[in-house]
Amino acid sequence: MSGNSYGKLFTVTSFGESHGPAIGCIVDGCPPGLALSEADLQDDLDRRKPGTSRHTTQRREADRVEILSGVFEGRTTGTPIALLIHNTDQRSKDYSKIMDRFRPGHADYTYTKKYGLRDYRGGGRSSARETAMRVAAGSIAKKYLREQCGITIRACLSQLGPIRIDKRDWDQVEQNPFFCPDADKVAELENYMDALRKEGNSVGARIDVVASGIPVGLGEPIFDRLDADIAHALMSINAAKGVEIGAGFDCVAQKGTEHRDEMTPEGFLSNHAGGILGGISSGQDILASVAFKPTSSLRLPGRSVNLAGEPVEVVTEGRHDPCVGIRATPIVEAMLALVLMDHLLRHRAQNLDVQSGTPDIPASV
Amino acid sequence: MSGNSYGKLFTVTSFGESHGPAIGCIVDGCPPGLALSEADLQDDLDRRKPGTSRHTTQRREADRVEILSGVFEGRTTGTPIALLIHNTDQRSKDYSKIMDRFRPGHADYTYTKKYGLRDYRGGGRSSARETAMRVAAGSIAKKYLREQCGITIRACLSQLGPIRIDKRDWDQVEQNPFFCPDADKVAELENYMDALRKEGNSVGARIDVVASGIPVGLGEPIFDRLDADIAHALMSINAAKGVEIGAGFDCVAQKGTEHRDEMTPEGFLSNHAGGILGGISSGQDILASVAFKPTSSLRLPGRSVNLAGEPVEVVTEGRHDPCVGIRATPIVEAMLALVLMDHLLRHRAQNLDVQSGTPDIPASV
Amino acid sequence: MSGNSYGKLFTVTSFGESHGPAIGCIVDGCPPGLALSEADLQDDLDRRKPGTSRHTTQRREADRVEILSGVFEGRTTGTPIALLIHNTDQRSKDYSKIMDRFRPGHADYTYTKKYGLRDYRGGGRSSARETAMRVAAGSIAKKYLREQCGITIRACLSQLGPIRIDKRDWDQVEQNPFFCPDADKVAELENYMDALRKEGNSVGARIDVVASGIPVGLGEPIFDRLDADIAHALMSINAAKGVEIGAGFDCVAQKGTEHRDEMTPEGFLSNHAGGILGGISSGQDILASVAFKPTSSLRLPGRSVNLAGEPVEVVTEGRHDPCVGIRATPIVEAMLALVLMDHLLRHRAQNLDVQSGTPDIPASV
Amino acid sequence: MSGNSYGKLFTVTSFGESHGPAIGCIVDGCPPGLALSEADLQDDLDRRKPGTSRHTTQRREADRVEILSGVFEGRTTGTPIALLIHNTDQRSKDYSKIMDRFRPGHADYTYTKKYGLRDYRGGGRSSARETAMRVAAGSIAKKYLREQCGITIRACLSQLGPIRIDKRDWDQVEQNPFFCPDADKVAELENYMDALRKEGNSVGARIDVVASGIPVGLGEPIFDRLDADIAHALMSINAAKGVEIGAGFDCVAQKGTEHRDEMTPEGFLSNHAGGILGGISSGQDILASVAFKPTSSLRLPGRSVNLAGEPVEVVTEGRHDPCVGIRATPIVEAMLALVLMDHLLRHRAQNLDVQSGTPDIPASV
Repeated sequence: MSGNSYGKLFTVTSFGESHGPAIGCIVDGCPPGLALSEADLQDDLDRRKPGTSRHTTQRREADRVEILSGVFEGRTTGTPIALLIHNTDQRSKDYSKIMDRFRPGHADYTYTKKYGLRDYRGGGRSSARETAMRVAAGSIAKKYLREQCGITIRACLSQLGPIRIDKRDWDQVEQNPFFCPDADKVAELENYMDALRKEGNSVGARIDVVASGIPVGLGEPIFDRLDADIAHALMSINAAKGVEIGAGFDCVAQKGTEHRDEMTPEGFLSNHAGGILGGISSGQDILASVAFKPTSSLRLPGRSVNLAGEPVEVVTEGRHDPCVGIRATPIVEAMLALVLMDHLLRHRAQNLDVQSGTPDIPASV
Repeated sequence: MSGNSYGKLFTVTSFGESHGPAIGCIVDGCPPGLALSEADLQDDLDRRKPGTSRHTTQRREADRVEILSGVFEGRTTGTPIALLIHNTDQRSKDYSKIMDRFRPGHADYTYTKKYGLRDYRGGGRSSARETAMRVAAGSIAKKYLREQCGITIRACLSQLGPIRIDKRDWDQVEQNPFFCPDADKVAELENYMDALRKEGNSVGARIDVVASGIPVGLGEPIFDRLDADIAHALMSINAAKGVEIGAGFDCVAQKGTEHRDEMTPEGFLSNHAGGILGGISSGQDILASVAFKPTSSLRLPGRSVNLAGEPVEVVTEGRHDPCVGIRATPIVEAMLALVLMDHLLRHRAQNLDVQSGTPDIPASV
Repeated sequence: MSGNSYGKLFTVTSFGESHGPAIGCIVDGCPPGLALSEADLQDDLDRRKPGTSRHTTQRREADRVEILSGVFEGRTTGTPIALLIHNTDQRSKDYSKIMDRFRPGHADYTYTKKYGLRDYRGGGRSSARETAMRVAAGSIAKKYLREQCGITIRACLSQLGPIRIDKRDWDQVEQNPFFCPDADKVAELENYMDALRKEGNSVGARIDVVASGIPVGLGEPIFDRLDADIAHALMSINAAKGVEIGAGFDCVAQKGTEHRDEMTPEGFLSNHAGGILGGISSGQDILASVAFKPTSSLRLPGRSVNLAGEPVEVVTEGRHDPCVGIRATPIVEAMLALVLMDHLLRHRAQNLDVQSGTPDIPASV
Repeated sequence: MSGNSYGKLFTVTSFGESHGPAIGCIVDGCPPGLALSEADLQDDLDRRKPGTSRHTTQRREADRVEILSGVFEGRTTGTPIALLIHNTDQRSKDYSKIMDRFRPGHADYTYTKKYGLRDYRGGGRSSARETAMRVAAGSIAKKYLREQCGITIRACLSQLGPIRIDKRDWDQVEQNPFFCPDADKVAELENYMDALRKEGNSVGARIDVVASGIPVGLGEPIFDRLDADIAHALMSINAAKGVEIGAGFDCVAQKGTEHRDEMTPEGFLSNHAGGILGGISSGQDILASVAFKPTSSLRLPGRSVNLAGEPVEVVTEGRHDPCVGIRATPIVEAMLALVLMDHLLRHRAQNLDVQSGTPDIPASV
């Protein structure tokens, strides 16, 4: 496979450029019989959609997804599900200012060197535009996991620039444009973002994701450990620079007696492991975090080089999220859903008849 | 593929349990014509080998690797290279104390639930014993990358428990048992480790890895981005809990003007991206870090559950690294080598004829 | 991967049902820089299109293909190429006669049992409608192989029912609706087909394919031998029941002295091997043949079973090719092109630097 | 994956040269809990073993297989199973006669051109020696399929040179060195083979294979159809030149009314399809055939070319099967077992909950 497919049994193959006629994907491997319609995908697409508040980019995309195959009389048929979104906001913009130069922090230079040419309109394939299809495909996985297995996946903002959000009230996440789980922090975030926009700058963010209701046993050591595949999936999101499972980098300073999650018949006594032991889910909540870098699309000028190798200055005009990490929240959920769905199918294939006889240890005391 | 293979074109398939007759792997996809002998693999295996100092486990393994195929008259033939290490240290130990109970923080519980049974001798497949094969296979990749492309890969300790190592003198790394790049910190590390061993506890570590001499263009967006595959590979190492590329989690608090690596004809002005833009190598050094958790094998008793679901106490006796992260250094190098080798071959396949005409931007000013 | 993708480096992922809104595919892994437009794909699509003569089905499909991504300013960019064909001939037909019963010789029974439900409109996913996308994707491969490597791929009818076509004049193939390379046989074929249609019956066909200009070295033993992958690709075409390479089943009765293709500096003295030795191309023409069964869609009644397991009679009304093998000709070419393209890229990845020094043996004396 | 792996969920990765220290493979994806020991593999290995009669090569290989991992206390653990056979018959033969020249009909030329060098000892990787590992791995699949699913797989000789064997008495197959299912033909075969050996020539063979007890539903259209994967697997065997499913090439001359297998509640009325409809198993017996070419290793001189491109004569001395197809019988069974096992697991993954409600149609009336 050539880089644009994710998953071995539940496989998403994606296509599309920012300013081409359409973006889309093929979801292959969805079990038959799942009730599915476009409406099931639209909710998450709307959560990711730009232009929903002044804190995200003002690109106006209808983002209406069409299902072109794989669903018959309202149910999946086991054949590939094709999803399509037409790019409606292809204003014939003037790209003369960026077509011959490499925006710093972007993929302009690497795409040009790798492929010998690039679609410079809005970043082309390297634009975060493609993440809409991750969200759409992920919604199918989320629906299956929720309806067939009782698994829920939720993400939220846990840090934006210097502002840490330590309280986690899931009911608040959808009540503000930051996916912030702490209502008391929303005003602070708004002020920070307003100042940032005025400054013309951008900032990074940290997103946490939690999956609950996980069966014991997902993950295929030694290379396709569940945590390794989660790391792959989350790091493949645009602008991601770090991934943690459970205690993550904090475990460097932990002692063994603190980190190891002791077990009792009533449940695990802690969850530093983030729900994964030896690369296999333990039944505890799966906990992961992703670091997103600040966008490099700034109206503050930056030094760069053009196609001829000469020094130039780059200024990005127009609409851009000052914090791309915010809108990554549904993308993070989607990617975790794709990982879990794939591993659920892989686990079923080989461990159908396993009767360990060993009682489950509850997720936590 | 079923979990024990890594890589699409340079593929390592691994087997073996801690206390079975042997461990081994098959390396498929190595280009023909590379000079290769067992001696080429032994150096890195010796660097990983336990028992080299009092700070690592005292398991005595000869770890003599045999090449069973794929090399003829001293050169690789393009056919699969099989590597084998016999387990020489299979003392008929008494496992009656752990065979019926789940060591907290280990994979005992998840393996038993997933597979219905487990090889309880020394952790079986979930033991870090298998990482010897990663190192051996990685040495082949390192040799090819070094000799054919001028790529070097080096890792070192950057934090052990509370002790951060900020100075990086590569010449020091092999001069002490901690892979510590700062000679001035070695005494502090020794004292800390001695106290830890006395206490019967363990601690985490952070390993940094740097690859230099990288060509522009490695990485296959959007899912097989170079950083995503690095995250996969590094997170698949035993005890890994976090992976960072470049600035990693620090980018959360960075502004865009700080993070974006400006470019001049003389070179990049910084490397917060860690050498990867849009999932494709930029020619700068690739920078990554891994967090390793403290081992859970402690002689300090921990609460757990047995096969019948009853509460039990677990005490681990015998030899165990108080900081498994230290010996992970050559494993981190090996995994990064496998990623780069695989991507080098993938890049060659599709971009053979690319003549971008655009001059390279030097790695740094 | 989940069954709807073909190829490891040049990967085609397909979707779509016979009577859904559209069919399409994603071609991932096409090298950048190839000049490509919809017109390049349309020729082969038109060759496959039904309704071009009275000897093929009268379904009227415009089969206009759209390129949705991966091409910028007339050249491939190295990113996935999405192809889409809207199904224009979705007459709201009455399916009540077949929706509850299994047409003998069709996939109705197996799809229903496998997936629990099926899209019964025109065969759904099991219809040969999907082969249009194979042809479109194959055209990209054919163009690359022809322009970059000088490889040509041509197929023709070699047997239809009892009529064998032994003469092979490539110039004739496109001059008649049977892809028949012998002008003298066309009248006989027409008469046979007319009688068959009158009878309400169908018949099988044999298609031969020849690829010329092949470099030595394509194929990845031991499992991904070139001949094994060709067999896979050709047998995956609807209605295929047999595949031969070179002498094929005739080699059963051959002696070794007859079969082995002796070599001289001036060239190979014969080509019983069909251009492949040990799973690797020898530089001779690649020769393969495919047997296609007669279609089972007949207006002559056949015994079958309905969803309730009761005996029923099935009669197929409407337009159907009495010999589906005829129109398979461009599909066979397309599948062979996909195999060769994939192996060309795989070969490049690993054997870039090989300098054997050994002179090539010409394809034939 | 790089050519030496077969299967997506039940994956066999193979290594080893004819005259290297050992051959072996890793079987990844075997479900846990299967009772397995070396004795289970030895039976089929002995059936394939050379030197069992004067009609097969006299190479004396003990072919004692060792299980190095993946089995604990007599049961598979779900971790990779490594199998190893040491090459005991590595007589230090004189290869000076063939090392510089290409045996016609062999892979000498293509390996040399592809890889730039080759292990010329006994054919190296291209030798049929590697098929021993296919047989060993296939035995694991056969055991699982038989014990867990009631599937049996049996192959036999159906043609040797001009001698066709039409009667099929399975009880006779193991009673003679030809795997001939007709006792009355054995004398004729013996005489033919004796004359052939005297002549110094070789001949082709056709092997038929039948799998019974197949569940409905195996196969993953459209590219990983069961028949396509069978074609791949069987054509990947050394010396295979043709594969047929069911009626195979005979279907070219069949009418639709004859070919389509009508169904009644009491069962299918025929099996021209060979048990596969639309790429999915129908529950009928799976029927396939393979054509094997005559070996090119002859003591009768053949014209060829040497490394310098000069004309030479090649004579093969020593032990060689005059009909390699005979011993292919257990290999054909093994490869079909690998295909079915892989598809059984793939089917389970995605179709676990399917309740079609439709009654099964019995395999035949």
